[in-house]
Amino acid sequence: MVAGKNMLETIHSPADLKKIPGDELLNLTNEIREELVRVVSENGGHLAANLGVVELTVALHRVFDCPTDSIIFDVGHQAYVHKLLTGRREQFATLRKHGGLSGFPKISESEYDAFGCGHSSTSISAAIGIAAAKRLSGDDSYTVAVIGDGAFTGGMAYEALNNCAGTNKLIVILNDNTMSIARNVGAMDTYLNRFRNSGKYFRLKNRMKRFFLHIPLLGKGLVKLATWVKNGLKHLLVRENFFEHMGLSYYGPLDGNDEALLETVLQEAKEDGHCSVVHILTQKGKGYSYAEARPDLFHGIGRFDPATGEPYSSGGGNFSAAFGNALCRLAAEDKRICAISAAMPDGTGLADFAEIFPERFFDVGIAEEHAVTFACGLARQGMKPVFAVYSTFAQRAYDQLIHDGALQKLPIVIALDRAGLVGEDGPTHHGIFDVAFLNQIPGFTVYSPETYGELERALELAIALPSPAAVRYPRGKELPCGKKATFADDTLAVYDYGCDPAVVFYTYGRLSAEVRQAAEALAGKGIPARVVRLIRLKPLEISRLAAYAEGASLLYVAEEGIREGGIGETLASAFAEAGICRDTRIFIRAITGEFPAHGSTMELFADLGLTAEQMAAEAEGMVGSVAY
Amino acid sequence: MVAGKNMLETIHSPADLKKIPGDELLNLTNEIREELVRVVSENGGHLAANLGVVELTVALHRVFDCPTDSIIFDVGHQAYVHKLLTGRREQFATLRKHGGLSGFPKISESEYDAFGCGHSSTSISAAIGIAAAKRLSGDDSYTVAVIGDGAFTGGMAYEALNNCAGTNKLIVILNDNTMSIARNVGAMDTYLNRFRNSGKYFRLKNRMKRFFLHIPLLGKGLVKLATWVKNGLKHLLVRENFFEHMGLSYYGPLDGNDEALLETVLQEAKEDGHCSVVHILTQKGKGYSYAEARPDLFHGIGRFDPATGEPYSSGGGNFSAAFGNALCRLAAEDKRICAISAAMPDGTGLADFAEIFPERFFDVGIAEEHAVTFACGLARQGMKPVFAVYSTFAQRAYDQLIHDGALQKLPIVIALDRAGLVGEDGPTHHGIFDVAFLNQIPGFTVYSPETYGELERALELAIALPSPAAVRYPRGKELPCGKKATFADDTLAVYDYGCDPAVVFYTYGRLSAEVRQAAEALAGKGIPARVVRLIRLKPLEISRLAAYAEGASLLYVAEEGIREGGIGETLASAFAEAGICRDTRIFIRAITGEFPAHGSTMELFADLGLTAEQMAAEAEGMVGSVAY
Repeated sequence: MVAGKNMLETIHSPADLKKIPGDELLNLTNEIREELVRVVSENGGHLAANLGVVELTVALHRVFDCPTDSIIFDVGHQAYVHKLLTGRREQFATLRKHGGLSGFPKISESEYDAFGCGHSSTSISAAIGIAAAKRLSGDDSYTVAVIGDGAFTGGMAYEALNNCAGTNKLIVILNDNTMSIARNVGAMDTYLNRFRNSGKYFRLKNRMKRFFLHIPLLGKGLVKLATWVKNGLKHLLVRENFFEHMGLSYYGPLDGNDEALLETVLQEAKEDGHCSVVHILTQKGKGYSYAEARPDLFHGIGRFDPATGEPYSSGGGNFSAAFGNALCRLAAEDKRICAISAAMPDGTGLADFAEIFPERFFDVGIAEEHAVTFACGLARQGMKPVFAVYSTFAQRAYDQLIHDGALQKLPIVIALDRAGLVGEDGPTHHGIFDVAFLNQIPGFTVYSPETYGELERALELAIALPSPAAVRYPRGKELPCGKKATFADDTLAVYDYGCDPAVVFYTYGRLSAEVRQAAEALAGKGIPARVVRLIRLKPLEISRLAAYAEGASLLYVAEEGIREGGIGETLASAFAEAGICRDTRIFIRAITGEFPAHGSTMELFADLGLTAEQMAAEAEGMVGSVAY
Repeated sequence: MVAGKNMLETIHSPADLKKIPGDELLNLTNEIREELVRVVSENGGHLAANLGVVELTVALHRVFDCPTDSIIFDVGHQAYVHKLLTGRREQFATLRKHGGLSGFPKISESEYDAFGCGHSSTSISAAIGIAAAKRLSGDDSYTVAVIGDGAFTGGMAYEALNNCAGTNKLIVILNDNTMSIARNVGAMDTYLNRFRNSGKYFRLKNRMKRFFLHIPLLGKGLVKLATWVKNGLKHLLVRENFFEHMGLSYYGPLDGNDEALLETVLQEAKEDGHCSVVHILTQKGKGYSYAEARPDLFHGIGRFDPATGEPYSSGGGNFSAAFGNALCRLAAEDKRICAISAAMPDGTGLADFAEIFPERFFDVGIAEEHAVTFACGLARQGMKPVFAVYSTFAQRAYDQLIHDGALQKLPIVIALDRAGLVGEDGPTHHGIFDVAFLNQIPGFTVYSPETYGELERALELAIALPSPAAVRYPRGKELPCGKKATFADDTLAVYDYGCDPAVVFYTYGRLSAEVRQAAEALAGKGIPARVVRLIRLKPLEISRLAAYAEGASLLYVAEEGIREGGIGETLASAFAEAGICRDTRIFIRAITGEFPAHGSTMELFADLGLTAEQMAAEAEGMVGSVAY
């Protein structure tokens, strides 16, 4: 094999990886880490988790035969090493770029990606399904799920564990780095901590077991006796642990950054043949000192200087910070206000709140379902809970929003961060469904502010309501708005470009900036236009909104969200019912039919026909060449 | 106290219950059981679970002080006894009737109902929220969650357990009747079984512990020693069980039909003051021999003869059975077809499938999230999974349908039973969201057959698709359709009432029968009408559907589902965009603004303006008095 700097280049598939002698693997893992730091520092992405699983991924691809054997990564942001080792090294520099490699496993990208993901806690369910299908079709290959301890706080992982027993050749790797994104929470984490503290116990126990098992006939009895004796001596480690309760073989805990040890144990789990859990301890950020020191910062990070570990700061605030600050101000005045996070206090801007109001801050783990119903319990008893969550993850709590929140008219507030397109994280993470799914829930009030100021005001209004509400805002920063509104209140703002508008745009949120540009472009071509920017998306005052359309020949609804069930359809159908479409053409430009890809927001807007230029041209074509 | 037959009548609140001497409670529990059997045999409802919790509910209301202390029932179908004891005895005969008592706890019904429900596994989350709010506001009352072992298979319960530790004065009653609705499944059930088999162990263990603890200073050490010795002798019972792993005090298991014992242990858990789990074993159907013998039949039952336990059969089949039979026929020919149930093989008509194709049948417990992703795993590996689930419970898997199914274009089939209004179970159970939430997921195909024959055909088509699909059908039986369609294919059927229709109805599913009657009534008044009944709801062929409207003056969309995001809005907005609404008025009659109540389907139709008479009158009013 080629040694030194170019070893990674020689690996075109896992078969090449298997040819490398064990004592040369250290060079390879070093090269992989360098490549990770190099590309993520350029493109942004999830660095710390990938640095932690270099040895695990190498060991998995040496012990198992993919794609015949299936490896399913949970969440999937830790699959970069897997991509490097499965024929995608040459494209790796395109990671997370428009048209390039996805930042997550994706079945359409590679036959080595057994199951796509992005949301947490799905891997074991998918793995059981794949393993069951293999059993039914006489395929005796292996199925491996790689899941972090953070994802273990999600109820779905438990639902799956409850269904694991009896599924042979299924191996669950519990990749325990003692943190999910921020520090871990909950009783399970406390429980796992006992294992962590028990050090190298696995090796001793297992060697002894194997030794005894090799004595024919007497083997099993002796193992039982030996176990009994050991437990008497070392009762910190419970004889039957949680996983064994669930009917699984348990191996661990072991050093997950020791490649040779991993190979040995994975081989053992493979030979076991039953459903097993291999509990490994890895260090998030391993091998890159800046990431080791600040694994939370390097969990998901933008571009940074690899030499110093310093992010290329884009300066200023963002919507998450604006939300966090606003909530702190409100909470200082109202002691009923509580904040809830699902393992994302930093990502959602709640770190300050957690520090200032620790008693009123609740991090529940990656448990959106619990979070919403817990919020409903708080609200039932007179508190004012605000659950801050990424729009895409709020999908997990759709039923709880209906069944526990809306049906009981409880005054919970859902702060939907990353609403709309999220950019490079791509289709698993786009927050394009929230408007449509909240729109359909009776009694919800929904705000979609465009500025930090509006966000604070919307939050205040939402908290003051006696019923459930949501405030949604995009990833990133507020955009500068040059144009002063002709009219504005808490529910909408109107911008006029010329008198007697021929085109009236209806839109909301971040997309409003593009829409205003489109209106301005139309006005420049002699087509007067108006923009009605909705701040409150639900309930809508149809007759008031219709009045703004009077005399127009085209109503153009632009929406950074799914078309079906969105504001466009609600407006258009209400306008049609009210007879407004008899004299005026209506058109909806929104997301439909396909999931948007990954890339920068502007690239995705262009894919979707949502840039100012595209919308202006489209509207111009529709109103025809009539001179105004 | 008044003894004998009239004891129950003397209880107007839990305060009255507390006055009854312990040795007279047997009479009371007998009376409660008689009342349960009497009313449920008349009104239908959930009998077996309520018969099992008579002693528990009595003990809870004697030990705790409601409504200051909060009792939260999980799922809530076992709260009848609670209703009888909290001032609702006189209304009890109205149970589940339109305008009467709800079959579930409901905060708007009584101050004693701490939290409403209907779906599974929410109680602990709500209880933690209520308890946390109490702590923050200086209220030192207790909060109790009553949850069955079936609900413990839902991941949300685990998410909540993971967040329990540290919440004082929170007591979780694990009401273990060894079955959820059908037999229980999964590793947790196997695990709990070991406790069940250990008999009266709790009493011994606890008495010993208390005895030792009363020896000052030496107490704790002795308890430790005694525990150690006992474990040596009785190692079937693990020293630290699952709940203790989760940081909770554990009491149990104990006989949950022994009222006096329950009071003692609840009192102890109360004095403990920490978060604790009281694990009780109850007998589903207890005290009514027919229900004891067939607790599954008496889980949720229609009217029956209390003297014989025989249901007043409504005869013939229903949609669930038609689905089950159809799936068996298809599965006999295609070995890739698998069926998945979330603890409802009987309710969803899958009992035969489970018997004929045991290897291809998977009951995953009350775990809809896992079910969908598990199905995606099966589909990824070439199988054809069909997950049969009540529409309302499918809401739990909204994110999985998007993230695991649709985004990956995996050919899973969701069979949505009880789609539309479910009648007496009421708002928590109405399947009124499925059309709207599936409509918004890119790439889903949705069928809404009206007859058993159409259901079978739709299922066949759905299974043959290379992408995700849903087939939705209502609770109950197919309705007779006297009218032959003018035209029909796999996607729609057209019924004409006179030539050159002035009114064209668009509708789907069960409501079509009402709509056809409305059309007939209009025709009888000289207003020719047409009914376009959609069988496939997504995708829609807009231009084809629009062609049926040519020349009409009113398009009337009738929908047994939520308006926002439903088919009406999609059709109306597409028609408006296509310019069809310039000449034709459009109107949508659907559910909006409020959750429908409980009652018979026809009563609810009347509430919602969806009866044939209401729709005919409404349409007539809109087309005016023009003679045709």
